[in-house]
Amino acid sequence: MKKGIGQYAIGESFAGFLLIKEATKGVTTNGKPFLTLIFCDSSGEIEAKLWDSTKEDEATFVPEQIVELAGEIIQFRGNLQLKVTSIRPAQPTDGVHISQFIEKAPVDKEVLSEKIMEAIFEMENANLQRIVRAFVKKYGEALLTYPAAAKNHHEYVSGLAHHIVSMLSIAKELTNIYPSVNKDLLYAGIILHDLGKLKELSGVVTTTYTLEGKLLGHIPMMVEAIGEVASELKIEGEEVTILQHLVLSHHGKAEWGSPTPPLVREAELLHLIDMIDAKMNILNRALDKVQPGEFTARLFPMENRSFYKPLFDRKDS
Amino acid sequence: MKKGIGQYAIGESFAGFLLIKEATKGVTTNGKPFLTLIFCDSSGEIEAKLWDSTKEDEATFVPEQIVELAGEIIQFRGNLQLKVTSIRPAQPTDGVHISQFIEKAPVDKEVLSEKIMEAIFEMENANLQRIVRAFVKKYGEALLTYPAAAKNHHEYVSGLAHHIVSMLSIAKELTNIYPSVNKDLLYAGIILHDLGKLKELSGVVTTTYTLEGKLLGHIPMMVEAIGEVASELKIEGEEVTILQHLVLSHHGKAEWGSPTPPLVREAELLHLIDMIDAKMNILNRALDKVQPGEFTARLFPMENRSFYKPLFDRKDS
Amino acid sequence: MKKGIGQYAIGESFAGFLLIKEATKGVTTNGKPFLTLIFCDSSGEIEAKLWDSTKEDEATFVPEQIVELAGEIIQFRGNLQLKVTSIRPAQPTDGVHISQFIEKAPVDKEVLSEKIMEAIFEMENANLQRIVRAFVKKYGEALLTYPAAAKNHHEYVSGLAHHIVSMLSIAKELTNIYPSVNKDLLYAGIILHDLGKLKELSGVVTTTYTLEGKLLGHIPMMVEAIGEVASELKIEGEEVTILQHLVLSHHGKAEWGSPTPPLVREAELLHLIDMIDAKMNILNRALDKVQPGEFTARLFPMENRSFYKPLFDRKDS
Amino acid sequence: MKKGIGQYAIGESFAGFLLIKEATKGVTTNGKPFLTLIFCDSSGEIEAKLWDSTKEDEATFVPEQIVELAGEIIQFRGNLQLKVTSIRPAQPTDGVHISQFIEKAPVDKEVLSEKIMEAIFEMENANLQRIVRAFVKKYGEALLTYPAAAKNHHEYVSGLAHHIVSMLSIAKELTNIYPSVNKDLLYAGIILHDLGKLKELSGVVTTTYTLEGKLLGHIPMMVEAIGEVASELKIEGEEVTILQHLVLSHHGKAEWGSPTPPLVREAELLHLIDMIDAKMNILNRALDKVQPGEFTARLFPMENRSFYKPLFDRKDS
Amino acid sequence: MKKGIGQYAIGESFAGFLLIKEATKGVTTNGKPFLTLIFCDSSGEIEAKLWDSTKEDEATFVPEQIVELAGEIIQFRGNLQLKVTSIRPAQPTDGVHISQFIEKAPVDKEVLSEKIMEAIFEMENANLQRIVRAFVKKYGEALLTYPAAAKNHHEYVSGLAHHIVSMLSIAKELTNIYPSVNKDLLYAGIILHDLGKLKELSGVVTTTYTLEGKLLGHIPMMVEAIGEVASELKIEGEEVTILQHLVLSHHGKAEWGSPTPPLVREAELLHLIDMIDAKMNILNRALDKVQPGEFTARLFPMENRSFYKPLFDRKDS
Amino acid sequence: MKKGIGQYAIGESFAGFLLIKEATKGVTTNGKPFLTLIFCDSSGEIEAKLWDSTKEDEATFVPEQIVELAGEIIQFRGNLQLKVTSIRPAQPTDGVHISQFIEKAPVDKEVLSEKIMEAIFEMENANLQRIVRAFVKKYGEALLTYPAAAKNHHEYVSGLAHHIVSMLSIAKELTNIYPSVNKDLLYAGIILHDLGKLKELSGVVTTTYTLEGKLLGHIPMMVEAIGEVASELKIEGEEVTILQHLVLSHHGKAEWGSPTPPLVREAELLHLIDMIDAKMNILNRALDKVQPGEFTARLFPMENRSFYKPLFDRKDS
Repeated sequence: MKKGIGQYAIGESFAGFLLIKEATKGVTTNGKPFLTLIFCDSSGEIEAKLWDSTKEDEATFVPEQIVELAGEIIQFRGNLQLKVTSIRPAQPTDGVHISQFIEKAPVDKEVLSEKIMEAIFEMENANLQRIVRAFVKKYGEALLTYPAAAKNHHEYVSGLAHHIVSMLSIAKELTNIYPSVNKDLLYAGIILHDLGKLKELSGVVTTTYTLEGKLLGHIPMMVEAIGEVASELKIEGEEVTILQHLVLSHHGKAEWGSPTPPLVREAELLHLIDMIDAKMNILNRALDKVQPGEFTARLFPMENRSFYKPLFDRKDS
Repeated sequence: MKKGIGQYAIGESFAGFLLIKEATKGVTTNGKPFLTLIFCDSSGEIEAKLWDSTKEDEATFVPEQIVELAGEIIQFRGNLQLKVTSIRPAQPTDGVHISQFIEKAPVDKEVLSEKIMEAIFEMENANLQRIVRAFVKKYGEALLTYPAAAKNHHEYVSGLAHHIVSMLSIAKELTNIYPSVNKDLLYAGIILHDLGKLKELSGVVTTTYTLEGKLLGHIPMMVEAIGEVASELKIEGEEVTILQHLVLSHHGKAEWGSPTPPLVREAELLHLIDMIDAKMNILNRALDKVQPGEFTARLFPMENRSFYKPLFDRKDS
Repeated sequence: MKKGIGQYAIGESFAGFLLIKEATKGVTTNGKPFLTLIFCDSSGEIEAKLWDSTKEDEATFVPEQIVELAGEIIQFRGNLQLKVTSIRPAQPTDGVHISQFIEKAPVDKEVLSEKIMEAIFEMENANLQRIVRAFVKKYGEALLTYPAAAKNHHEYVSGLAHHIVSMLSIAKELTNIYPSVNKDLLYAGIILHDLGKLKELSGVVTTTYTLEGKLLGHIPMMVEAIGEVASELKIEGEEVTILQHLVLSHHGKAEWGSPTPPLVREAELLHLIDMIDAKMNILNRALDKVQPGEFTARLFPMENRSFYKPLFDRKDS
Repeated sequence: MKKGIGQYAIGESFAGFLLIKEATKGVTTNGKPFLTLIFCDSSGEIEAKLWDSTKEDEATFVPEQIVELAGEIIQFRGNLQLKVTSIRPAQPTDGVHISQFIEKAPVDKEVLSEKIMEAIFEMENANLQRIVRAFVKKYGEALLTYPAAAKNHHEYVSGLAHHIVSMLSIAKELTNIYPSVNKDLLYAGIILHDLGKLKELSGVVTTTYTLEGKLLGHIPMMVEAIGEVASELKIEGEEVTILQHLVLSHHGKAEWGSPTPPLVREAELLHLIDMIDAKMNILNRALDKVQPGEFTARLFPMENRSFYKPLFDRKDS
Repeated sequence: MKKGIGQYAIGESFAGFLLIKEATKGVTTNGKPFLTLIFCDSSGEIEAKLWDSTKEDEATFVPEQIVELAGEIIQFRGNLQLKVTSIRPAQPTDGVHISQFIEKAPVDKEVLSEKIMEAIFEMENANLQRIVRAFVKKYGEALLTYPAAAKNHHEYVSGLAHHIVSMLSIAKELTNIYPSVNKDLLYAGIILHDLGKLKELSGVVTTTYTLEGKLLGHIPMMVEAIGEVASELKIEGEEVTILQHLVLSHHGKAEWGSPTPPLVREAELLHLIDMIDAKMNILNRALDKVQPGEFTARLFPMENRSFYKPLFDRKDS
Repeated sequence: MKKGIGQYAIGESFAGFLLIKEATKGVTTNGKPFLTLIFCDSSGEIEAKLWDSTKEDEATFVPEQIVELAGEIIQFRGNLQLKVTSIRPAQPTDGVHISQFIEKAPVDKEVLSEKIMEAIFEMENANLQRIVRAFVKKYGEALLTYPAAAKNHHEYVSGLAHHIVSMLSIAKELTNIYPSVNKDLLYAGIILHDLGKLKELSGVVTTTYTLEGKLLGHIPMMVEAIGEVASELKIEGEEVTILQHLVLSHHGKAEWGSPTPPLVREAELLHLIDMIDAKMNILNRALDKVQPGEFTARLFPMENRSFYKPLFDRKDS
């Protein structure tokens, strides 16, 4: 595999295509305009400065534009920076596409889709199954391509579906270990719990919050959506209320955004499985970036802890 | 006005009609059955024991039954208790009705209804007005008779409407003092903010929580209901989202049940007005029960404080 | 009205008089001295750099000095900055005065004074009235010109009196809605509650904390001052203690600086009214600076929230 | 299966053998001595009063004594109580044994032992394996019979081993889902994490805290024990320190008794798996005691929540 | 020394004089009046019931009345109780006095007074010395006889002076170890810090809170008193403000009643010394009541901890 | 005494030897390499920039290297900076040694050693004495030279021994004031409480945390070490457990790193004495740097407070 921008070290030279993720205008202390650009490919991102930028530059180098550039990796205030020596916007003839530059789930979306369908197929309670099926149909492609969050965990293309599928695997095993758990309810909760994010987040590539997302949040929006879908399907009764409860309570407590805490066994389990998979996603990706014997960067969503990667392996002694 | 059960002191004799609010069976240390009854009228409540109760007594003396009784007020473990000397269920010929025995708002429900309609009439934004009108029509009588809560504040018949009307008065004056406030939005928020309680609480006389109330809570239920009504009225756009936001955020912060805090000026104001009216209702009713120079009982919803009623009056010196 | 410095945008040229609010010396990385100046007029403030500054410059360009200058508005590290092209200290012949450059309450101090006197006139309790009158006489001009705080809310000339007068308006209406409230006590509490700030803050233009302010705080200082004034007026009894209690408890709880929480109805109401008026002052001023559809900057004293200004108006639909 | 004391309802008669769990002396208000006894069998426990007890009774009816008794189930202050009509201490000829009267894990200790040995066998890192093996050998029978806690979760005979085995099952599946996890380290952490309880708790039947348990706690005691064992086995290096870290941090944060939070991936996972299995044990046992449509009692270790058991089943609709 | 009521055990008989500390009327479940009396002497206290009490009994057996009685020590609901067999009010001819029945500091008040005067004599700063001298003169006898608190620590006659004198001893040594500490300021702070309690608490024998104490608290009252005394002595300047700061901040933080935390070295030290002496007073008295190898009762002001008294002594081994 | 680098002011010239404490490579915005160096001597430290640094410079100017340099003190972004005009590494012939450039305790280590030995000599309990003696022998020189912490308090050579000796002085006086305290236990706790830092911190000059220090912390490491030493000395029994408890609990509560709070009188006292000496060390050193009438910098370990140094002295008035 080709070396991505996330793998370059100080002093190395880079030449190739990158995607512009952010572009901000600035003025130096002596009044000269410049552009701060953040470039990315699927392996990571890097900052660069474009000195003495023109109005034309400002119009050319904008987010979601692919560019071909060359430069050197330097250190600037403790972070890596790309010192650009040449840059030009990509042409149609370059044969590059935005989807090549953004991080994706390590599992294909077709596989993810299949696994979700399998879980639905396993469900025996018709009410729960019909509601879940209706959502999967309604949200279709978005469900398979959205990230699970704007940052923190599973923040890549198909991150949401990847998160759902990992959670379903954990749920399957836990229902073996604790057989009194209602598997249908747990599966339904897992598949639906974060679908409100499809309305809370603006999109797949540059992910920001919608007005509805900011003023209501994905949890109340999804509670409402379940009510709506159930009403369209003419399904009434405890399954609907309890499914809404699973979504409402899945953050675990009021301070974390769930006005009601889990009060049903499967709601508690949904919360715990969600927490495990989110934490493991963060941890695994952070540990992948360091060598044995090193600590990771501080991980904000893990209470700002920095984790150690032991020197020894399974078979060591 | 006739003296109510809430005004009797130790050593006094009582004779008259009371409503049974709660009835619990017990067994003495030497194995004899008895009933613990809580009687009430519109002025307050008192506990009593019915010793050596029969199966027939258990079937007769049940909640919502009116009885005629006589007895003496004694002290038992620091609280007042009614020592019953005679008791019989009321007959149709007694001409007593349950509504005579429960506390009501100090303002008639017709007046409350009229004040709410006036506020709706003052609204200029058609979308907000139509949504509010739809709810008032839909919930009709319940809106005018429900308490505002199972306990703590405005916990009496028509308490919810009384609370709404007091809040509307405060809102009217504040919009004069701060003219940039959107009066329509604030009025709409005030009228709708607690209507979810009509589904959260079981009823007017013996008020408990419904399953939906326990698992979802009145706030998410009302957010969903606004979405539903807006969709029925085919109203779309920011008014709907922002009205939902006002309801969602009116408890002020996550720990108090609002997963999103107020992020719109009128939402903040709704929260503050709700807090003032609830607190003044609690305080005024507690201070009415004590004499100048005394402290009230500890008030749990006021951080368990006990308030002092000063000896001096306005004109004193 | 002439455009103030707070209304200028990047790229615009400015020419006119401004007041120096702060001046700090610095040295560039290559050892050259410069001055960082913060200029203001009544509409806002802007930062500027004076490169290669001389000893003479340092003596000339000091806080409270008015200057005439010209320059261009640029962006520097995300904030606006004024790139100075010419600057000279104002001369007596320029006819400019410091009071023209600082923000003032939107109501004249004569009107504010009159409203406070009206409230005192309405009071019926002679003890409370005499104490309040003594303070108004004693603090006179300062009471009418001080800001209510060094920052956060009503932080402008006559801000304290403006805050008192708004609170009196709210109090007047609330005593109509809740007639058992003691209006004299509430009015007295409102007028006196923050007068300790006249000793806590250094002055009107460049507002810092005095040593007494830092080591004791305005609340204990004012409790002491009430005791002193009452003793001078030979007033004794509950009115004095309770008035001290209102001042002592008006921040609402220990963590916010009130070692005793409100334990008298009017103390609780004073706290609530103070909170409403402070919050609405912050909110209204922040929302005035943004367009419909935008969010305000993060507001630190509002738990760091950023508020949304809806697109629709009262009559919209 | 014979009906246990935990299944009796008010009004039913009981006759048979029970174990005395607690015995407390008391004096009635008129000065007569009595005994309060708590009887148990493997299905639950019930309180009883022995009125007018003699010195001989006090010497006879003591904890861990089996008795044969008859009586009736009554209600006393909201709880069930056994009204004793006859009672005598069990005789050797009765053929009853203390082990028949105490709750046990639902899995035999031989099976539990085998599963733990299997996990050890799967380990590839010789250092970790040798340390774990040494502990299993050292604590032997106690490891297989102790409860996991004095109350809250797995508080029955072999509860600790049952907890370990459930956690190993979860761990096995999670290492499949997250293959970069070090299975040996996680297994070792799971088997050792709570072994300090063997010194913290006094024993299997009447479980109290030892002085060492109260003054040091099982976590620091186990950290010390790992150091000791490693030193006996002459094992040095990171495995020892990291295994101590897993034990030290497994409560997740300082407030919960871990002075260092998890800083190694497997430590975080150990904490999460421990939490899931403890919570599911509490929840499943509480839900087993209620009918569909009911709420459980408040569960103190689950933040005092009361959980709902839905009416519908997997196949319902 | 004669055995006090605090040293009696279950089953022993008591005959002698005791002081009534509290008297509460009650009614039995079958309607008969009784009195609950709490008797005390300087060694402790005990509860008793006076069954079938008459109106005359109620008038006779009141707080601060000394009685001669006989009875037996029994256990009632886990606590000791005195079963009264005879009781009569003490007569003047009995030669007993209330001061014989209340706990006193272990040091005579003359000695305490002398030690305080010595400390004042050591002071070199005339302003601080004059203020302190004025207070000692003004409060005289009360300063030497009041308890330091209504409960928790030094809650006995002369407890306040005992607390001051212990603190002065600690202060003396700390100023040797840290010579840059201003001894005069620290001594002045120690002597004055709790004098507000002389106005906050109602008296020496039955100690309750005054209205001023409840609404203002001893800290703000003492800050005011220092201002008053300084003004009477015509002392101005930093000493006064800083002495007020020491009193204001001596509880250490806002949540504990100090709206300003210590911001002067001697204020911090005053807070720390106050805390040590209060805690050691609580601890020493609790440990005096238990045997080596036992735990004390839970100590509420020590975060509800229960302390262990080791078995070994200094010379043990 | 020669003026140290900590005493230089802006505008002054420096010439002499300094020790390099930290060295960090950087690149300017236009790509040129430079070194940021932090120089220190025993009086303080200062930052400097070495522009256009070569590979050779990077190899020469490294931590723990002494250099001779000349330059001028300038201000850079609010802090002092040394503008270097000449710099060269020190030669053996310069006769300078690293120990001359680092801060030391104000008391010689021989004196500190003697004081610790005296305390051990005073101990009467042979078990405690033998354990303490074993540690002092085992850790020898390190105990006498290590700092007490990497930062915050006593962060200088011999800081740990200095801290122990100050605490012993306080303990001696407190055992006079509270004679029931077990002096041997308290002394033993004081001498051992922080010895775990000898393994937690990397060394005397450049003090960082070891892996064991990060993953276990000095408290659990020291609890383990006491167990080990006691076992080597074949000492068993309560003294060992209680000494471990003193070390384990000396941070006072779980949030501060003590999983068990103090539950023995001497443990509580150890915690309080530790807190006093740490706070006074911080405060005294911060106040030494400011003039009367000034506030110190914000002190992070003192809850970020800034302390005031009064203008008046002991004898003032």
